[in-house]
Amino acid sequence: MLVPSLQKLLAALRRLPGVGPKSAQRIGYHLLRATREEATELARAVVALKDRVGLCSVCGNVAERAEGVSDKTPLECPVCADPRRDSSRLLIVEEPYNVEAFQKTGVYDGLYHVLGGLFDPLAGVGAVELGLDALARRVSGGSFREVILATSPTTAGEATASYIHELLKPLGVTLTRIAVGLAPGADVDYADEISLRLALEGRREYGSIGR
Amino acid sequence: MLVPSLQKLLAALRRLPGVGPKSAQRIGYHLLRATREEATELARAVVALKDRVGLCSVCGNVAERAEGVSDKTPLECPVCADPRRDSSRLLIVEEPYNVEAFQKTGVYDGLYHVLGGLFDPLAGVGAVELGLDALARRVSGGSFREVILATSPTTAGEATASYIHELLKPLGVTLTRIAVGLAPGADVDYADEISLRLALEGRREYGSIGR
Repeated sequence: MLVPSLQKLLAALRRLPGVGPKSAQRIGYHLLRATREEATELARAVVALKDRVGLCSVCGNVAERAEGVSDKTPLECPVCADPRRDSSRLLIVEEPYNVEAFQKTGVYDGLYHVLGGLFDPLAGVGAVELGLDALARRVSGGSFREVILATSPTTAGEATASYIHELLKPLGVTLTRIAVGLAPGADVDYADEISLRLALEGRREYGSIGR
Repeated sequence: MLVPSLQKLLAALRRLPGVGPKSAQRIGYHLLRATREEATELARAVVALKDRVGLCSVCGNVAERAEGVSDKTPLECPVCADPRRDSSRLLIVEEPYNVEAFQKTGVYDGLYHVLGGLFDPLAGVGAVELGLDALARRVSGGSFREVILATSPTTAGEATASYIHELLKPLGVTLTRIAVGLAPGADVDYADEISLRLALEGRREYGSIGR
């Protein structure tokens, strides 16, 4: 009984991650009531994204094509294009939005490498799919003093970090891993034994880390 | 540090109901990875909605303009356009998606009237904003044997139903209210006293209602 245009929009919305039938409905009826400007702005933003945004040819971060530039030209992201970044440090992350998150910390000014995923044998994602040969070439060709493995402390994240560690070790670069332990604000009473063990193993001299 | 096109899309997504910064990010990066077809289908669906969908000039339900029809022509929704509907019954609901919900029950084949909201004095929504004079005209000009008040059993829903009741009473039509009581599957042990009181007051002869 739903009119076709609304039905089509609800179907398109339901394909988005985290959007179920109820939220698709809420968004659909919101757009029905929204001004034409708000709706077309959303539609235009989606199209512009596909037209102009891609992945940085150096690091895999999100990058945008300047107006009028051919879509054959390799893209360069804002981090790689910034000459003030410290090119002696490389932070390896899973996804482009992780770059955003580390940028927001304000304490890192080196370069990034985005894997675009983690090892996932069941889905057929391994070293080839993550382009780890390109990472090795980048590190051997660069002048990095430190490569920081910042994948999640999950099974897949640890497996990927461990593989990259083996891969880059022969290149003589210092490899570090982000700290794993109790989450800030966590209560020792409620922490599971794995968190406690990792927090203990990762202990540092008191006062050696700021807040 | 986010590229402008992605930033714009995230801003447009965050304006949608129920979409916070995290889900906007998830949807944005999903669209980055999605095929161009999927993305343009979403964009086209949003534009088509604004171009072709509006409210039924009779009942306020969602209605779609046929291709090539001028946007000056009053719209008619699928329910009002269906000659097989029982035109002696009118079900008054809050929003167009409530029509969908009642349609799905499969037990109602009459007509609808969509208020487009409920009384909300703080937001300045009263009888005028809900177009209750048009409702009264529709009922007095129609041949309804029964008008069913199907607003929510909340304070605003009851206030609106009560006002409509007073408004339509002089027209000599039978006014009914949807049943309020325990939700199907609810446990009497856990029901609050208001639910229990309403369930008791709304009791019917055993066996008079099917399942």
